[in-house]
Amino acid sequence: MMEMTAQKLRLMGGTVELVDIGEQELPDGQTLALPKVVTARFGTDSSKYTVCVYGHVDVQPAKREDGWATDPYNLTDINGNLYGRGASDNKAPVLAWIHAVEAYQALNMELPVNVKFVIEGMEETGSNGLDAMILAQRDTFFSDVDYIIISDCGWLSRRPALTYGTRGNCYFFAEVEGPKQDLHSGVYGGTVIEPMTDLIGILDTLISPSGKILIPGIREAVAPLSDEEWKMYQDIQFDMDNYKNKIGVNQLMYSNKVDLLAHMWRYPTVSVHGIEGAFSDPGTKTVIPAKVTAKFSIRQVPNMDPAMVKKQVTDYLHSVFAKRKSPNKLKVTMVIGAKPWLADTQHPLYEAGKAAVKRVFDMDPDLIREGGTIPIARTFQDVTGKSIIMMPIGGFDDGLHSQNEKMSRYNYIEGTKLFIAYLNEVSQIKKTSV
Amino acid sequence: MMEMTAQKLRLMGGTVELVDIGEQELPDGQTLALPKVVTARFGTDSSKYTVCVYGHVDVQPAKREDGWATDPYNLTDINGNLYGRGASDNKAPVLAWIHAVEAYQALNMELPVNVKFVIEGMEETGSNGLDAMILAQRDTFFSDVDYIIISDCGWLSRRPALTYGTRGNCYFFAEVEGPKQDLHSGVYGGTVIEPMTDLIGILDTLISPSGKILIPGIREAVAPLSDEEWKMYQDIQFDMDNYKNKIGVNQLMYSNKVDLLAHMWRYPTVSVHGIEGAFSDPGTKTVIPAKVTAKFSIRQVPNMDPAMVKKQVTDYLHSVFAKRKSPNKLKVTMVIGAKPWLADTQHPLYEAGKAAVKRVFDMDPDLIREGGTIPIARTFQDVTGKSIIMMPIGGFDDGLHSQNEKMSRYNYIEGTKLFIAYLNEVSQIKKTSV
Repeated sequence: MMEMTAQKLRLMGGTVELVDIGEQELPDGQTLALPKVVTARFGTDSSKYTVCVYGHVDVQPAKREDGWATDPYNLTDINGNLYGRGASDNKAPVLAWIHAVEAYQALNMELPVNVKFVIEGMEETGSNGLDAMILAQRDTFFSDVDYIIISDCGWLSRRPALTYGTRGNCYFFAEVEGPKQDLHSGVYGGTVIEPMTDLIGILDTLISPSGKILIPGIREAVAPLSDEEWKMYQDIQFDMDNYKNKIGVNQLMYSNKVDLLAHMWRYPTVSVHGIEGAFSDPGTKTVIPAKVTAKFSIRQVPNMDPAMVKKQVTDYLHSVFAKRKSPNKLKVTMVIGAKPWLADTQHPLYEAGKAAVKRVFDMDPDLIREGGTIPIARTFQDVTGKSIIMMPIGGFDDGLHSQNEKMSRYNYIEGTKLFIAYLNEVSQIKKTSV
Repeated sequence: MMEMTAQKLRLMGGTVELVDIGEQELPDGQTLALPKVVTARFGTDSSKYTVCVYGHVDVQPAKREDGWATDPYNLTDINGNLYGRGASDNKAPVLAWIHAVEAYQALNMELPVNVKFVIEGMEETGSNGLDAMILAQRDTFFSDVDYIIISDCGWLSRRPALTYGTRGNCYFFAEVEGPKQDLHSGVYGGTVIEPMTDLIGILDTLISPSGKILIPGIREAVAPLSDEEWKMYQDIQFDMDNYKNKIGVNQLMYSNKVDLLAHMWRYPTVSVHGIEGAFSDPGTKTVIPAKVTAKFSIRQVPNMDPAMVKKQVTDYLHSVFAKRKSPNKLKVTMVIGAKPWLADTQHPLYEAGKAAVKRVFDMDPDLIREGGTIPIARTFQDVTGKSIIMMPIGGFDDGLHSQNEKMSRYNYIEGTKLFIAYLNEVSQIKKTSV
């Protein structure tokens, strides 16, 4: 994907580099080369602003048998929707930005701003290596960048949106190891304390039945909800029944809009994703799994600190495990530690965004936050000191990370127009106001 | 496998049938044709005893990536051990019985007893359809059978053994269903009660940290340990340290031999095998699984009743789930309900077994029970009223159901000799003593 992306940008006449970002060490000690990061540049006019578009071309895992109606790795057009893993997260937005540049080129129009690209291939596992690369190129590639644009998110409703915050993510592996290999549950059941019993026991101490996080210190760290926020959330266009029906549940965790949006965007949450090493296929198997690893993650919000969360979770799990007096061994690892991000919605960059949305869609955007994580937003902010805007074009029902992910032709095409208009709006920002 | 087995027996001159046993309904409503059961007959001399050998040629699932050193479906000989899924459970024993008949044929010796075979292909999932087939053929195929021999088990140590009891197994699926499809844990986390949270919560109520079953009524049903049993267990050759090292745990659930053997053989146990529908691959995925199904089983012992256990488990899980007040849906299904079995070790069939072991190995066998399940033993007993013996030839360290299952050449060859000798011993049983 990185080679393909670089080649596409080269053919458009960009100045392209494939940047080596080193290797990754896996929990088992194995090391793997990280996919290179693609950087590209179109235009070097120092009298113009320079924007840098960030995107990623890696995707979440997908298997047909997860419940896809089509082959997840073969883009399939059904009734104006383009189905495929990564269609909305984040390939169509990356392509739409490329098309925006191509549109100016095809019309023989000069780009109103210089456009740079940073495209990576590790976003879905926490943008490994990218932080260091941004830091390393702060005074080179990023030195003339004025604004950073990220389109790795989606609208909240059919109304276009600008996004001003995201949650971070701390992703944990909790491994319980017992016997040296899997055992027949008939032959050995009753003679050993089973790792699955221990793992389930400690996982059950993470969250209350009503969804409250039980790890000491997590909830205490969260910034309190201000009256201004409450008022802003009240005004956002959001249909609770529509949302409930889309998900297909009888009842949401909160029954009023403000509580629901707040827990989606600005409170932490714990999700247990699954267990590796146990029997997970259809049918029956009478096995005592020897080593089982739970995968769970905690969404980060201001003012949480991933380093502190790592300590809180590790200490807590070891303390509840110790109470079990099990002969098995517990190992807790934090494999992703991505911080949350928050922007100022009154910044000229957001005013330009509102104007572009008005021009293409003839309406005002909703100002929203994102429950998911764009790990790199926070790094861009901390390292480069530049202002960032998140400008989504994905639909609210695109099914990111789940079965039948899609991008509609409408959002793909109108989104491309939005990006073209936005480059123009950004070029109009008064220099003094920066 | 059924066709291959039938063809092998046909080529030996047996009278062979492939018996249609209907179809199976899966939990999702789908139906599948069951593999046919192979029956075969060698000899029809009504002046001789007729023994019926039961075996199975289906196996547990196995994948190289589970941790096999060799391809599990390609029998590999390493230092006198034959590695492969099903090597010990139950293909080598079935072959050894076939070789026993072939040995008499090759030496032009008349079989001392008539030998029948019943070979099935559904043992690992509860011998579906076999109960009905045995019932249907009670007055035909089984009418002239005097004794039933099962070799679907293993020794306890390096000393040969005869097995006089097995545990049964009730296998459950507990499915929690929430959203209509998997959700992105960043985008949706905090807005829904996650099915994994509910599932972990109810699984955690099955077993105490020390391994005690918490489902009301289960422990109360178990037959008390008699003084005779206690004495018998005391005398069995069993090395606790060796057992502990073989499994590779720091500490067993019980620290004395009698407690450990009793919990391996004559007390129930709960094992959670795994969860279907959650993320179980290596790496990270930030998903809220929409529908998750736990697989767990409870080993059955006298005087438990699977129908009662089904009700106890279902009622209990629904009651703990109801306390959670979750909007998700719980479905509990018992997909296997196999009864335990117990024989009289003073029966002439066991005396013949002791004599055959003495002849081939020059020692007395241990009289042991089996923690695993041979679901059909109980049915043979209940339906045909015939006496049953379990005569294992598998080694104590064969790794049934786990990685690197094997059968040693020694056990395979000496086991074949044992079966040959046993047919001869059975022919000597005094008619009056039956």
